[in-house]
Amino acid sequence: METHKQLTIGLFGFGVVGEGLYKVLQQTPSLKANIKKICIKNYEKKRNAPASLFTTDKNELLNDRDINVIVEVIDDADAAFDIVTTALTNGKDVVSASKKMIAEHLPALLELQEKTGQSLLYEAAACASIPVIRNLEEYYDNDLLHSIKAIVNGSTNFILTKIFEEGLDFKQALILAQQLGFAESNPKLDVEGYDAVNKWAFLLTHAYGIIESPENILFNGIQNVHAADATVAKEKVQAIKLVAQAQKLKNGGVAAFVLPQFVKQDDHLAFVKNEYNGVVIESGFADKQFFYGKGAGSFPTASAVLSDIAALRYHYRYEYKKLYHHKPHQLNNNVFLKIFVSFDDISFIPRERFEWIEEWHAQEERKYLIGVISFDELKQNNWWKENNTSLILTTDPVIEDIEVKSLKKRSLELAGIL
Amino acid sequence: METHKQLTIGLFGFGVVGEGLYKVLQQTPSLKANIKKICIKNYEKKRNAPASLFTTDKNELLNDRDINVIVEVIDDADAAFDIVTTALTNGKDVVSASKKMIAEHLPALLELQEKTGQSLLYEAAACASIPVIRNLEEYYDNDLLHSIKAIVNGSTNFILTKIFEEGLDFKQALILAQQLGFAESNPKLDVEGYDAVNKWAFLLTHAYGIIESPENILFNGIQNVHAADATVAKEKVQAIKLVAQAQKLKNGGVAAFVLPQFVKQDDHLAFVKNEYNGVVIESGFADKQFFYGKGAGSFPTASAVLSDIAALRYHYRYEYKKLYHHKPHQLNNNVFLKIFVSFDDISFIPRERFEWIEEWHAQEERKYLIGVISFDELKQNNWWKENNTSLILTTDPVIEDIEVKSLKKRSLELAGIL
Repeated sequence: METHKQLTIGLFGFGVVGEGLYKVLQQTPSLKANIKKICIKNYEKKRNAPASLFTTDKNELLNDRDINVIVEVIDDADAAFDIVTTALTNGKDVVSASKKMIAEHLPALLELQEKTGQSLLYEAAACASIPVIRNLEEYYDNDLLHSIKAIVNGSTNFILTKIFEEGLDFKQALILAQQLGFAESNPKLDVEGYDAVNKWAFLLTHAYGIIESPENILFNGIQNVHAADATVAKEKVQAIKLVAQAQKLKNGGVAAFVLPQFVKQDDHLAFVKNEYNGVVIESGFADKQFFYGKGAGSFPTASAVLSDIAALRYHYRYEYKKLYHHKPHQLNNNVFLKIFVSFDDISFIPRERFEWIEEWHAQEERKYLIGVISFDELKQNNWWKENNTSLILTTDPVIEDIEVKSLKKRSLELAGIL
Repeated sequence: METHKQLTIGLFGFGVVGEGLYKVLQQTPSLKANIKKICIKNYEKKRNAPASLFTTDKNELLNDRDINVIVEVIDDADAAFDIVTTALTNGKDVVSASKKMIAEHLPALLELQEKTGQSLLYEAAACASIPVIRNLEEYYDNDLLHSIKAIVNGSTNFILTKIFEEGLDFKQALILAQQLGFAESNPKLDVEGYDAVNKWAFLLTHAYGIIESPENILFNGIQNVHAADATVAKEKVQAIKLVAQAQKLKNGGVAAFVLPQFVKQDDHLAFVKNEYNGVVIESGFADKQFFYGKGAGSFPTASAVLSDIAALRYHYRYEYKKLYHHKPHQLNNNVFLKIFVSFDDISFIPRERFEWIEEWHAQEERKYLIGVISFDELKQNNWWKENNTSLILTTDPVIEDIEVKSLKKRSLELAGIL
């Protein structure tokens, strides 16, 4: 019987997550994990732990040969990268919750893991309490994962839920989210989709072996979602969600993006409300699976960090199977999306760039159209983010380039044009 | 960097799961797992694999020193127990899908795992594609798991869904389930709850460290659920599901049972339809989590077996943390349930054994009552399984003994009796 590694932890950060983690570890002697030292920025603050545990000198942790695990739950992505790389280089395993740092530095972190043989785990960085990374690593073979759709940002989901279910306008909902601690005081990262696309960048690595920096992934947030869009959605008995999506194409590539989407009432993602997250995975073998849980907050995050610490006891490391053991997939932009666009003035909308337009509502105060457009057009141009324009993906599936001609013909026939 | 174990597999069983597994392993060289020999009962059948792989002699696998993993996907629980115990004793790790065998022999299997130091994994035995065992082991500390409610039997859930959504009667729905391969030709094990309580027995071990044989756990199936019960449920905008439930009590014990339940429309379990399974976990840290996926069928089962095989590569074994590293919980029967009982004739119902009765519908052709009864009464007597009586748990939470007096007083006051 294999003996378990005794874990001696150096903890960076003692905010709500760090302190929560400290408490749980104290209550869980069975984990055989104890915190030897905690590095904080501000030594003056009153802390609920013995003063002797604290230091402001990171090297006291990073150079301590007794410490074999560094847990990093700080807010500063650059400092986190420095800590994580030094720790790995110094022969320590690392648990991190910094999604931004991981998304931005994944290639370097992969290289360092290979070089040092140390383990870097970061389940808390995406969907917090939902064990999405571990499940993607362990349960889905590359060839079998057809698609993955997820709500990975709790703040925006909370705001959208309040708009839909309680009729709040965007600003009221945002203020409520901030009051309840579901949105940062500077909500731009959440609301404009940066947080979601950061998470999506490294989830794509675990799902498909794709390595892509967040800025190369098509994304938008919910900042332009309009009250009138919600009205349209309600008429169709649909909701609007900020959805991160990836899908294997017939040509072998993967289409991936983060966009607001209309979601049918019986869609699994419609079930995900308020600050919760959800992940829907379709695969050849396991078929459709749905994981649901709290995606943010101190305790759900601490629980994910704890599960990573527990995994280090039996030497667990991400294998990045889809990247190293298979032929990794590539992002492919040869697809078309059927989108809803609402706007104040038609002159803002480059109608000629659509493949075809299926609906046209010009009478309403807030005008809108539904049309099919190429993915590249959206990636290369920004008209749809400007002039108070709102773009929302319809419930129609992604259209592959081999399908678009026949679909266009059929659509024009139905409209009586052909 | 740790090297991964090279797995040489001896496979017992080449039905739909076994053959599915064989195909996947062939397509997944990265797993470094190859099947050396397959033991089958009937040598005459045509097989989609080289004849040289097959044998009918179990010892060719169990005594082969090259084979370090035995995978067992056969239907016969007694034969499975013999295979699994011999394999562990012979120093092999084992993957099993036999829920009945595991439920009935868990104490012996635990002892053998301890003694031999070998790993026995059986994710496929409960909820197939949903990684419920692994998540219970890794993600929930004992003191934090408040409750777990689950739909663990796909056949009964399929039947109930068809009754509710398509108005089929029980027999029609059962025949349809059989035609679609979701129910055995002898459906008694599924329909009467034996399969569900078997799974529940060992899930209780992973959730709470409870070791209890299935026959000591209160359970019932859906065999007596009546069309009129569905009508009552629909009037209340509720569904009826066969739910396995466990809940930590204020006295430190755990109440656990498998019973048909009314489920509100916004309950996570109402979302689980047809042959799917679902698990709702409430915990102190991660809060509410919901896992959903296919709970049966050859491919979902093969995918779970595959994930166990993958885990053996890095020497994974269940730690049974709640059992060995914590003070294990005990089942506690000092609770009361608010139940719905429908019946043809009042003389079948021992009204005096209820703590109190809240509703009484004697005018209907199919009569029913709603009342509060002690858990022990249900465990010790069988009147509620006889005479075409139907018992369904209401949506009210389990009542602890410390609450029952005040609840009774309040209830009688409301009824104008006190």
